[in-house]
Amino acid sequence: MADSRFFKNNGPFSLKELSKVGQVELILPANSHITEDYIVNDLANLAEADQGQITVLHNSKYNDLLKSSKANVCIIHSDSQKFARDDQALLVSKSPYRSFGLIAAHFYPDSYSMIYSKTGAKPISDSAKIGKNCHFEQGVIIGDSAEIGDNVTIAANTVIGIGVKIHDGCKIGANVTISHAIIGRCVIISPGVCIGQPGFGFHMDESGHIPVPQLGRVIIDDKVEIGSNTTLDRGSLSDTFIGAGSRIDNLVQIAHNVRLGRGCVIVSQVGISGSTEIGDYSAIGGQAGLTGHLKIGRGVKIAAQSGVIRDIDDGQTVGGYPAVPSRQWHKQTIAIEKLVKLK
Amino acid sequence: MADSRFFKNNGPFSLKELSKVGQVELILPANSHITEDYIVNDLANLAEADQGQITVLHNSKYNDLLKSSKANVCIIHSDSQKFARDDQALLVSKSPYRSFGLIAAHFYPDSYSMIYSKTGAKPISDSAKIGKNCHFEQGVIIGDSAEIGDNVTIAANTVIGIGVKIHDGCKIGANVTISHAIIGRCVIISPGVCIGQPGFGFHMDESGHIPVPQLGRVIIDDKVEIGSNTTLDRGSLSDTFIGAGSRIDNLVQIAHNVRLGRGCVIVSQVGISGSTEIGDYSAIGGQAGLTGHLKIGRGVKIAAQSGVIRDIDDGQTVGGYPAVPSRQWHKQTIAIEKLVKLK
Amino acid sequence: MADSRFFKNNGPFSLKELSKVGQVELILPANSHITEDYIVNDLANLAEADQGQITVLHNSKYNDLLKSSKANVCIIHSDSQKFARDDQALLVSKSPYRSFGLIAAHFYPDSYSMIYSKTGAKPISDSAKIGKNCHFEQGVIIGDSAEIGDNVTIAANTVIGIGVKIHDGCKIGANVTISHAIIGRCVIISPGVCIGQPGFGFHMDESGHIPVPQLGRVIIDDKVEIGSNTTLDRGSLSDTFIGAGSRIDNLVQIAHNVRLGRGCVIVSQVGISGSTEIGDYSAIGGQAGLTGHLKIGRGVKIAAQSGVIRDIDDGQTVGGYPAVPSRQWHKQTIAIEKLVKLK
Repeated sequence: MADSRFFKNNGPFSLKELSKVGQVELILPANSHITEDYIVNDLANLAEADQGQITVLHNSKYNDLLKSSKANVCIIHSDSQKFARDDQALLVSKSPYRSFGLIAAHFYPDSYSMIYSKTGAKPISDSAKIGKNCHFEQGVIIGDSAEIGDNVTIAANTVIGIGVKIHDGCKIGANVTISHAIIGRCVIISPGVCIGQPGFGFHMDESGHIPVPQLGRVIIDDKVEIGSNTTLDRGSLSDTFIGAGSRIDNLVQIAHNVRLGRGCVIVSQVGISGSTEIGDYSAIGGQAGLTGHLKIGRGVKIAAQSGVIRDIDDGQTVGGYPAVPSRQWHKQTIAIEKLVKLK
Repeated sequence: MADSRFFKNNGPFSLKELSKVGQVELILPANSHITEDYIVNDLANLAEADQGQITVLHNSKYNDLLKSSKANVCIIHSDSQKFARDDQALLVSKSPYRSFGLIAAHFYPDSYSMIYSKTGAKPISDSAKIGKNCHFEQGVIIGDSAEIGDNVTIAANTVIGIGVKIHDGCKIGANVTISHAIIGRCVIISPGVCIGQPGFGFHMDESGHIPVPQLGRVIIDDKVEIGSNTTLDRGSLSDTFIGAGSRIDNLVQIAHNVRLGRGCVIVSQVGISGSTEIGDYSAIGGQAGLTGHLKIGRGVKIAAQSGVIRDIDDGQTVGGYPAVPSRQWHKQTIAIEKLVKLK
Repeated sequence: MADSRFFKNNGPFSLKELSKVGQVELILPANSHITEDYIVNDLANLAEADQGQITVLHNSKYNDLLKSSKANVCIIHSDSQKFARDDQALLVSKSPYRSFGLIAAHFYPDSYSMIYSKTGAKPISDSAKIGKNCHFEQGVIIGDSAEIGDNVTIAANTVIGIGVKIHDGCKIGANVTISHAIIGRCVIISPGVCIGQPGFGFHMDESGHIPVPQLGRVIIDDKVEIGSNTTLDRGSLSDTFIGAGSRIDNLVQIAHNVRLGRGCVIVSQVGISGSTEIGDYSAIGGQAGLTGHLKIGRGVKIAAQSGVIRDIDDGQTVGGYPAVPSRQWHKQTIAIEKLVKLK
């Protein structure tokens, strides 16, 4: 599943080997051809996994996906075994996410690389493809096999990593860093932006946190604008996605696997946690924060400094912490003011 | 009005042409020499516009400025026509800000450029003026016609854009990006800071947001200090301004047209929205946020994490969200604590 | 006390000279050999100061440290003289922190330097020591006397300052800036991070804020990971410290003298104010803020967006602003919701 432009797969591996690496108990399906010598080629998330790819169930929100998944090999907690089909091989673990991290690192040992170009003394790699009428300023680095479209300007000291694709008409400011990303047409990126670095993915463990390799990408659609010093982490298994025409202000944090719809407006210093999805034409006020794995509808408006911890339906306007519909939020504010006067 | 060091004006244009570009209805004043062939030279905001410059009224806060403005050409909503003088030509639009964006882009089609220097292979442009006793480290880029004073140090991989002026005695850290700015004497800028990029200015429209060219500058007065990875956007029409001796911590967001007084203290992760003005010697605690177009007095203290949505008088101390005077805020906190005990 | 790799001490100076520089009244101890000609070699904080080093008491939290300190020369407010021993020379000031700033600047006039390497045309200084099997990309700058261990990768356009030490196996992303720091083994630093710049230290004064030289370092222990565009300021007199295995997300602010324990997890956009200490394996949710000089225990969990203004015991879970134990916080939220329904 991981894009071979960005990640090198060291597999395939047998179930036997992966069970050892992941420190799991292997339960083979009764009515199946799968043995401990079964060959696993790659990793994938539940929604996208195919036969021969190992997946993981580590968040009860996704229990129901397992039965409908094409996956035939899944890392799972014993409590969730009931959600599996009887033709699926299970790698039962006390901590499925930890086991997944260990197995993913076995497939992709170099995923944490901070190498942007393997070319020695050349700032622009010989293997990069450069379009017509581009303007690259001093100090620009373009990694191996990167592809830059026509009419692209890239400002001084900006770094474009290995395999990154940038389509026609983009304007990229100075001191920007981009890796593991595909950038659409006419995207404008202000200085200091970081795109494509590994997300905050690991299993917390007092004996030492276990890193979970971040094997996705950042996909940015056409005509997006991104403000200075904003950070967009790459996906963990699937991609982080920014819909066409969306505008992101300065110092915004977009975590791994976030999906932003078309025409969204994200004001400065907003933080969006991992795997949260935001519908088209939604707007988020400055310094608001959203927890992970939320579904925010289309045309939603979130007030500045709100703390959003629940899904929001299309067209809603919310505010406060925890965020509630705006009318209710304003009533709360007034009620607290009155309370003080009463005392 | 736009500084010709930073922006190239493609005008002048006739009122007829601008009406078509802005998708407006042109209403010519009865008692005036202005016809549809009247020549408009430039754009300006209401407070600063002169004869022959086109301005816009798009925020009811500024209705009263129109009558006293020298402007004789204004983009306006039909609801606000009553605020105009009868010698002013009006470009009536359902969305004045959208029309202004279209017209501004017609005057300044290159305003979104992310080009810092047009010099080919030279890191320091031949047309830059460099003072005495400067120290520039490896990888420093200095754009065309930039002016650097005496005794300035600029650290490695920092980028100074076209036309930027930096006065004597400044110390600028590594990986900084500065464009569209004039920096006073003895200013200290920590690494990673971004100054002068375009602000978050556009007309929200489901058929595609309309960008509004950002044609102002950042003016930083003497002895200011700016912390790491802080962002200061340039003004939209007027300038973003930081008063002498002010200190701004790390990761702070200063939006377009913000005016900070002398000796202000802005703690880390504060966000100040567009056009808000802050009086001398005011202090803002960490992570506080201020909405746009506010007037904050002199010597005001704003508690950490506050959300300020109203003007504040001189010398006030406020806290909470929405921010209220500190005594009231503390009473609210106590009242909520008591409420829980009662239940 | 200041590390001579990073700071040049212009002393020693006599008590007489320092009294004049600091604008203080010198009170010599009766029963001591100390005269106004007594030679002071350096500065240090109360906990670490030794004989012949000048220290300062400017925060009542530390009153009790003075009696047990080895220091025999202390800048102090007259109100706090009672906390001194009678063998300690006192520099009595209306504003001890201001006087300390003036005296510290006398010892270390160059502390505000933004110079990362004094080498002229060479990106990697001849005096830097480089380990085996390192990979440095284009545009990397390594300052004089820096020491880089084995198997270190440093990505494009990253700047490593004078005297910085980076141990084996570190991976450092692009456009990073590091100065005044010692980095442990196998530390991973994402792009855009700033480490070691001066903290937000000064005496507020309407006649012009007085800078207080920042003379400490950043010490990062083994296997720490730091997210994009995060900022870690160096200590003021002691060091900023990040414990082994801790994980810090993007856009986090770590102020001067903060001490983070082992295995801590700090989510995106958190701000930790100066001198706050956090115990091992504590976790702080996104956008939370902590004021300065706090002691946060081991295994503490702080909810996202919390505002922490008091010490927290081991193992506590807190939330809200001001942060209270989680159960109490949830009760507050429910009480406010009910209040609205009652009206």
